[in-house]
Amino acid sequence: MRQRYKPWADDFLENNNHIVLGSPYENKGDWKSIFGNDNPVHIEIGTGKGQFIVGMAKQFPNINFVGIELEKSVIVTAAQKVLDSGLDNIALLNENAENIQEIFADNEVATIYLNFSDPWPKNRHEKRRLTFHTFLKQYQAILEPTGEIVFKTDNKGLFEYSLVSFSKFGLIVEEVRLDLHEYEDPLNVMTEYEEKFSAKGQPIYRCRASFSMERDEGN
Amino acid sequence: MRQRYKPWADDFLENNNHIVLGSPYENKGDWKSIFGNDNPVHIEIGTGKGQFIVGMAKQFPNINFVGIELEKSVIVTAAQKVLDSGLDNIALLNENAENIQEIFADNEVATIYLNFSDPWPKNRHEKRRLTFHTFLKQYQAILEPTGEIVFKTDNKGLFEYSLVSFSKFGLIVEEVRLDLHEYEDPLNVMTEYEEKFSAKGQPIYRCRASFSMERDEGN
Repeated sequence: MRQRYKPWADDFLENNNHIVLGSPYENKGDWKSIFGNDNPVHIEIGTGKGQFIVGMAKQFPNINFVGIELEKSVIVTAAQKVLDSGLDNIALLNENAENIQEIFADNEVATIYLNFSDPWPKNRHEKRRLTFHTFLKQYQAILEPTGEIVFKTDNKGLFEYSLVSFSKFGLIVEEVRLDLHEYEDPLNVMTEYEEKFSAKGQPIYRCRASFSMERDEGN
Repeated sequence: MRQRYKPWADDFLENNNHIVLGSPYENKGDWKSIFGNDNPVHIEIGTGKGQFIVGMAKQFPNINFVGIELEKSVIVTAAQKVLDSGLDNIALLNENAENIQEIFADNEVATIYLNFSDPWPKNRHEKRRLTFHTFLKQYQAILEPTGEIVFKTDNKGLFEYSLVSFSKFGLIVEEVRLDLHEYEDPLNVMTEYEEKFSAKGQPIYRCRASFSMERDEGN
């Protein structure tokens, strides 16, 4: 999964700093002015090669997308896809998810997508999972009160863990899908991994969760 | 799944009313004296032919088990299993789950097992699902504050629905298993359905959930 070091990556990123933004911390609280409109901001943590975020930006032109990817050698591929698409409602950041509160102000984000995050299956690496409670706390801060987390994975263990982690944190699980591709959904944009795993017949898990404590009539 | 009417069932139940109790509403609040000890009371809603509850009662002699089953023609099979086992920590009730608050007082139950409940897949039958919020409200009343619901099913749709229903009601999901038989668990007692479906290679889903609002250190 980790790609070879690409020596030309630094040059490419510098030449395309309108796509892979160089100083993301300066935009905190100002993302609407960066995009030049009042549209909601959706972010993807772990954008990888960018198929999901470019597909989403095409499908939803009235939403601004920010893709965050730590691996420089991978984000260049995503940046090339953005360039090729000609879309202006995407920005990419070569950043660590741990710094997300340095990048976004409180309530600045409407939706957070976690797609095929590293499962970190060993117990001692629990803290690194993007659905560990320290991350959830950060997501809660940057999300609007009605904002959502949309989480997709093919990893059963990570999905089981995350449902429990969400619940213990007090998140409301709005939807659970245990085989996303059981029925065709033209609105579902697939990531590269999703396309590969799904083609092999492996189930893809998805859930949507929010921090809103609004309860239905059952309570 | 529904069994043929058994004309001898009435006689059998009358002759064995120490196992299939005749007037369960009279025991409300007095279950500990019925069993003649202070052990916790665990109940199974939809006991079927009784393999689960008899297996559990064997494995946990210091817990009292009450199995509730609406179908008279099915509960006789469960009663025969209880008779054959010689166990005295099981009672059965030929009752409807809707009447559960007539049978148990507030806080009288430690654990509720829902095993392979009817999925009622049509939307208009949602109210009949044993994880619909009206049932959850009743479970909350009869369960001790630290009590748990343990829910097993092979039905993907019902499991997806139930996770959302639990979450919206404010239940804390303590554990989720998306393929219970992936690893052998000597403590897991299988129901008749579970044995059959699992042998076919179908995944069995399980979750444990509680009403306790105790949160972990993440909050």
